[in-house]
Amino acid sequence: MKKYNEWERVNKRIRRKVFQPGLHMMSMLVEYEKGGIGPEHAHPHEQLGYVVQGAIQMTIGGQTVRVSAGEQVHVPGNVLHSVLALEDTLLLETFTPLREDLMI
Amino acid sequence: MKKYNEWERVNKRIRRKVFQPGLHMMSMLVEYEKGGIGPEHAHPHEQLGYVVQGAIQMTIGGQTVRVSAGEQVHVPGNVLHSVLALEDTLLLETFTPLREDLMI
Repeated sequence: MKKYNEWERVNKRIRRKVFQPGLHMMSMLVEYEKGGIGPEHAHPHEQLGYVVQGAIQMTIGGQTVRVSAGEQVHVPGNVLHSVLALEDTLLLETFTPLREDLMI
Repeated sequence: MKKYNEWERVNKRIRRKVFQPGLHMMSMLVEYEKGGIGPEHAHPHEQLGYVVQGAIQMTIGGQTVRVSAGEQVHVPGNVLHSVLALEDTLLLETFTPLREDLMI
């Protein structure tokens, strides 16, 4: 990533835009084409995911849920999670504390 | 507020939906009709505001900015801020730490 607030391509089906961080929380938009996958991973940071458009299937600690536009999901820290885009989707992810791996 | 994840009317022009809180952060959707006003206030909690649809004019610590769909704004803790809806608007507000005044 080179700049905050600009789109960056992650792979063929995914782009992301990391917003200028706050003091203790930060967020990014993730744009998925249908079929795009966010592979299973975990981080100590707590996460909220708000679906702006579209719908995802999210597996969190072994439980799978569908999250559609207007809905929000919570991922506790250190819990494995993954995403499958069921439609073309825009997802806003917010983290606390700051994800230093997402910072410039 | 009686339940998380349900719309609650604030006044004639504003509804809100407080999502189930996380551990250290929480968020709510605020739906404004054009002309709706969030009066000036401050809280020690840091805030991110993401405009899902529409556009707002936000005054933060005396500075006025326009925030349109797809854009985000940061409000540091203890800084006076207010909102004027320039269009019919859906705003996602996220706070850390938890806003106990928004909890059941």
